[in-house]
Amino acid sequence: MNDNLPARRGRKSEISRGQILDAAARMLRRQGYGNTTLRAIADVAGIQAGSIYYHFASKDEIMDAVLERGVAAVYEAVHDQLAALPVGTDHLKRIETAVIAHLEALLSHGDYTSASIRTYGEVPAAFQQKAQPLREAYVTLWQELLGAAQRDGAIRADLDTSLLRTLLLGSLNWCVEWYDPSQRPVREVAAQAVDVLFRGVVPAYVPPSLKE
Amino acid sequence: MNDNLPARRGRKSEISRGQILDAAARMLRRQGYGNTTLRAIADVAGIQAGSIYYHFASKDEIMDAVLERGVAAVYEAVHDQLAALPVGTDHLKRIETAVIAHLEALLSHGDYTSASIRTYGEVPAAFQQKAQPLREAYVTLWQELLGAAQRDGAIRADLDTSLLRTLLLGSLNWCVEWYDPSQRPVREVAAQAVDVLFRGVVPAYVPPSLKE
Repeated sequence: MNDNLPARRGRKSEISRGQILDAAARMLRRQGYGNTTLRAIADVAGIQAGSIYYHFASKDEIMDAVLERGVAAVYEAVHDQLAALPVGTDHLKRIETAVIAHLEALLSHGDYTSASIRTYGEVPAAFQQKAQPLREAYVTLWQELLGAAQRDGAIRADLDTSLLRTLLLGSLNWCVEWYDPSQRPVREVAAQAVDVLFRGVVPAYVPPSLKE
Repeated sequence: MNDNLPARRGRKSEISRGQILDAAARMLRRQGYGNTTLRAIADVAGIQAGSIYYHFASKDEIMDAVLERGVAAVYEAVHDQLAALPVGTDHLKRIETAVIAHLEALLSHGDYTSASIRTYGEVPAAFQQKAQPLREAYVTLWQELLGAAQRDGAIRADLDTSLLRTLLLGSLNWCVEWYDPSQRPVREVAAQAVDVLFRGVVPAYVPPSLKE
């Protein structure tokens, strides 16, 4: 029976590490950084407050892990789905794939990604450093995706792709605050987002009167 | 000299009411609801903690006023600028006007609107009720704007205007978190947002391969 102990403890601690992070993400999303205490996290996770220290040295180490997991979930989904496309896939299909992957990952890890979005700037900068390289890598991924599309003429040459990236991801990130899966499937939201991004809303474009 | 006292006190209390709200909005934006205390608000506002009670009964009454002011600033700007357009102004010009007004109001009241966005859902629902009718009126305003444009064929008939509204406002709202006025003028951000919304990013649209 003693032989089984290390293995069982390994499994148990993985479970409770995950439980702690899930509870912290849920609290961070709903109550913000200031209201999230170690004791409350332990209560929500259904564990002893003291046993948190088995996994994390402090509240801020937990926050750090939550923020990193939120960014990582989205980064990995988009990266992996782009990598899985056949060589030579056209730019618009690549952008469409990235939009869908971003939205699906964002919404299926709602507590983590919303916590990350909501506490951005609120959490002391020192605790955000772990997620920062991933954030930058994610910006680079999108910048390369849009830049390559523009260089090959797949998207308009007159657009500032850096501004485009920010407006597009803002539009998608916002979904985590209002999206209700019982109302419509994620794919429907993604499909219209891509459609409007590519074609715009005007049936046959005429310059607005402002520009006359 | 006594004759002047009521008038002077009137002016003074208006100033400190505004100072309290400004301080609260700044704290709420940077530190979240949980970390924002009456004492800290008083410190930032440069007044005695006790004198807050001259204006507000509780922290939550301050929060309520901050959230309401954030929504009101945007609502009024968009409403007033649409109302100022000549009768018969075409739909695209109206939408463009609303986008610019939304973005300018959002960014020029950054602490209030960001506080409102960040604490949405985090602040107990009871304290958000004051802003709720305005939020709903604002949704209605946009819904009517986009609905009228669609009925008259100015925007595509196959789009879900409710989803379009959410994606568009999400894209604009997000700007309050990243926009740096030293980098580019607000009008430039608004111009590209409108341009991409109307025309899309693809030079001459071809259906993405996903739809084949």
